[in-house]
Order: sequence, then structure tokens, then C-alpha cells
Amino acid sequence: MSIVIDGSLAFDTIETPEIRMEKIVGGSCAYSVLAASYFTDPKIVAVVGSDFPSEVIELFQSRGVDTRGLTIEKGKTFHWEGRYGHDPNQRTTIKTELNVFQDFKPELIPDYRNADIVFLGNIDPDIQEDIRLQLDSPKLVAMDTINLWINIKRDALLKVVRDVDMFFANDEEVKMLTGENNLITAGKKLLEMGPSFMIVKKGEHGALLLNKDFVFGTIAFPCENVVDPTGAGDSFGGGFLGYLDKVKSFDEKHLRRASVYGSVMASFTIEKFGIERLKSLTLEQIEQRYSEFSKLMSF
Amino acid sequence: MSIVIDGSLAFDTIETPEIRMEKIVGGSCAYSVLAASYFTDPKIVAVVGSDFPSEVIELFQSRGVDTRGLTIEKGKTFHWEGRYGHDPNQRTTIKTELNVFQDFKPELIPDYRNADIVFLGNIDPDIQEDIRLQLDSPKLVAMDTINLWINIKRDALLKVVRDVDMFFANDEEVKMLTGENNLITAGKKLLEMGPSFMIVKKGEHGALLLNKDFVFGTIAFPCENVVDPTGAGDSFGGGFLGYLDKVKSFDEKHLRRASVYGSVMASFTIEKFGIERLKSLTLEQIEQRYSEFSKLMSF
Repeated sequence: MSIVIDGSLAFDTIETPEIRMEKIVGGSCAYSVLAASYFTDPKIVAVVGSDFPSEVIELFQSRGVDTRGLTIEKGKTFHWEGRYGHDPNQRTTIKTELNVFQDFKPELIPDYRNADIVFLGNIDPDIQEDIRLQLDSPKLVAMDTINLWINIKRDALLKVVRDVDMFFANDEEVKMLTGENNLITAGKKLLEMGPSFMIVKKGEHGALLLNKDFVFGTIAFPCENVVDPTGAGDSFGGGFLGYLDKVKSFDEKHLRRASVYGSVMASFTIEKFGIERLKSLTLEQIEQRYSEFSKLMSF
Repeated sequence: MSIVIDGSLAFDTIETPEIRMEKIVGGSCAYSVLAASYFTDPKIVAVVGSDFPSEVIELFQSRGVDTRGLTIEKGKTFHWEGRYGHDPNQRTTIKTELNVFQDFKPELIPDYRNADIVFLGNIDPDIQEDIRLQLDSPKLVAMDTINLWINIKRDALLKVVRDVDMFFANDEEVKMLTGENNLITAGKKLLEMGPSFMIVKKGEHGALLLNKDFVFGTIAFPCENVVDPTGAGDSFGGGFLGYLDKVKSFDEKHLRRASVYGSVMASFTIEKFGIERLKSLTLEQIEQRYSEFSKLMSF
């Protein structure tokens, strides 16, 4: 099969209680394509400014990522600044500079249009919808988002939600979107709003996968040293969908395993700053952690 | 084997956003002995006032609970009043009237002293320590607590923690006791403070079981209608230890399963107010939910 992944490529300035990292490479798409690249050869749709390091584009290519859908615009790359508290689940956005993203109107090249799986990673929901409308007959369209779009573009976001097959959102976001405190009820409400599959990402508490027939829960990998939680959710989505693209199946068994592979990729991401940990994993490391998840959850 | 369970028997006044329930029967011991009674015949150590309904004592007896360790004092039964927010994980204690608990000095009868498993359920840590010191040579001593004792009797509490084999505490409590936000780190720190096994109860996010050799995580049963979360943790402990008493084993396989049976019993408790749901479950219902947990977590 084939998978197209959109999202942001960015410079992230990240502050944790320990350290401040200035303008390291990040963005939802950086995490999700790298995570997916361990399972398949994703095609990327994104825009960067002329200040974006060519080494990172070469890294993508070396990992099998199809970068023909990557636009390099004159101007500055998207910049996000955020701060984490002592509880790494608590994140505050300090600054969002859209820069070249401001006027991004992606036009998909023909063989991108007939992708089997499309991951509308976290960006402006209008761009997500724009991409969705260019697709031929995808087998599975998934999306992710963040609280920013729920706050400032709720209607546009819900319009995309209505027409996708799978929605990744974190616990805060599903509560915001539904007004429900109970995550199961919130997840089910979102299933009624469009998607057939709902994934509630819960950070240190793992993730829930819901559809009308079953619920599957994974715990999070027990990580004691969370260096940088940025991109954990994007890596989850990239790993999840990359695995599905590899096994060419959407049956329940594979969806459950996709959840675990998503958790595996997220657990690596948070061990180092930015995309550092996703640059050079081995398949053995990934399979080993997958089997550690088996041990963590079997009884 | 045999199991002794102490804790409070109480009247609880419970306010949720929907309803206020005045002085219904509760207390840590009510939940834990009833939960355990589906696996074994627990021996109870507790005190009530003369206002405590004899029907509840008869209920315990009809479920095989040995009530010789139950003291009935002149005076009023312990009374707790609490309020839950829209998020049932958030509880505020409004009132705690110790009443007959004030001067409770339990003296264990001889065949209680040589119990194999002892569950020092949530009460004043001085009483927990008092009971612990009366034990002959228990195979496993477990304890539970609440934030109240961490706030007002921290040293006494830590003294008990030092000498037990297993400690049940919720996520808030392990953070309070260790000053650590990371639950794995907090759990491991507590392992260094005495117990061989640490169980971190996380409400809607399930539970973690840690010892020096392994970590096991369960998700929570997906319950959409949490009527009353009171006693969920006590039911978890009672189910967990009752199961171990039944299978007469503390090996890893059984500890993992005990975690799931604990989660099963907690999931029933929250479906109705007070001890209502624990009064008349069938073993079939318990086994069925256990196998639902298998489906929820298998991949």
C-alpha cells in the first residue's frame, strides 16, 4: 500500500524545568514521517522556509521518505515555542509563528492523490480539508489535531472530523470537543460525529482505541526519564498508520497491534529532545520494545 | 490460606454533581471484605457504633466473613462526608468524624494473629501498626492509605510502609509521599522505602504493579456511568488479596491476575452507590468481566 502524511515541519523552542532548547527541528510531520518510516516509505506533504536545514530533508530521504510533496518557500519556517511543567503532561504554548505556513495551499501530485492511507497530521484544519478533497479513493483517512484549532477553528475542524475514518486526539482535546469528562463517553460521542475509529492518547497513561465493536487499551511504556514529550502523539500516529500500511490490513487484530506500535514509537520519541531518538533506531530495537509491551500487559 | 482485613466501617455522606446520599454504609473495610469475600472467607478487624445496622453485619456473615474481630462500641459509627466533581477522580473531603474510631485499640484473637495474608486497609496508621505488631508470621502484609494520613501523620504512616510487603496507593498519594511526578519513579522510590510490591491505583487510567523485577499495567474497565467512585480502591485491594488467598500463591503470574481481579471488583463498585453493587454479584459475573479485561488488553 502507500501512505501520504501531512503536517508541520517546524523549528521548536522548548523549555522544560531543566533546560531550554532553541529552534530545534520539529513539527508534527517530522515526528510522524520518521516514525512511519520504520514500517513503510511515507510520502510527505509539508512546507518549509529557506532556513530549514537540508540535512533533515536528506535524513528523510535516507529513511525512504518520498519528499516530492515537500515545498520549500522563500521565507521562514514555522516556529513553535512551548513550555513543559514538572508534570510533562502539562504543556503551555508560548508562541506560534506560522511564517511560510500562512499561505500554504498544498497541491498533491498525481501518485499522492491515490494513496491508500492518508494521515492528516496536525495543522490548520482548512489545509487538512484541502488535502482531503484532493484524494482519489483512499482506503483510510486519519487525522490528528491540537487544542489550538479547537479553540480558534472549531467548525473547520469538525468539518474534517466528519469525513475522516480515524481520529487521533488526546484526553484534553476529546473533553474539549465533546464537553464530556468520561473518556469512553467522549470517545463514543466523537465516533458519532464521523470517524469509525477513535484513538484517545493519554500520555503517561497510554491510549484507548475505540470503534463501535470494541475497545482496546494500551498502557504507556514505563519511562522514567521523559526528556521531551513533544511529538509523542505525532510519533504514535505515524507508527500506528505506518504499521497498517506495512501489513496492508485494517482488521481488528492489526488495529490493536498498530496501537502498540504507535505506543512504542512514542516511547522512543520522548527519550531525547526533538526528533533525535527517531533518527537512527533499528528494527530490532522496535521489535524488542514491542515484546516488552507484551510483557507489560499480559496476565 | 487465611486473610485478615482491617479498615473503617462508616456512614458516608456522598455528594456528586447529580445527587446527595446521606449516611450510607461505607468505609474501607466494608468494600475490601465484600470484594475479598468472592474469593475467600476474610476475617474482619473493625469497630462500629451501636447505630451501625445489624443487617450489614449479617450481610458480611452471609458472605462468609468472619466477624469475630468486629467490635461494637457504645457511641456513633465513624462518619465521612465527601464531594465529587464532574471529574469523578476529584474528591474533596468535607468532614471526618472519627467517633468510636477515636480510641479504637484492636486486640487480635489468636487465630487472627497467624493469618497468612493481612490487609491493613485505610485507617489511622497507628492502628495499622498496632495490628501489624500483633501478627505471628504472616506471609504477606499489605497496606492502603489516603491523603489525610499523609497530611497529618506522615511519619507514623512511613513507619508502617517500611515494614509491609505490599503498598496500595493512588497516583496523588505516591506523588505526595515521594515528591516525584513520574509515577514509575515514584513507585520505585516507594519500593526503596520498604515494600516489595507497589500498586499505583490510577482511577480511570487503571493501575500499575511494580516490584524490582517487573512492571505490570492494567487499564481500567471502560465504565461510562461512574455512579460513585467511593471504595473503588478498597475493592481493588480486597479483590487483589482475596484472589491471592484463594490461589495460595504470590508468584508473578498470580500477582498479575490479582491486579486484574482487583480492577474487576473496583469496576463493579463504582456502578452503584456505596456497597450496593458488591452485595450480590455472582462468580459468573466476576469471571465474565475478567475475560472482558483479557479482550480489552490483548493484542
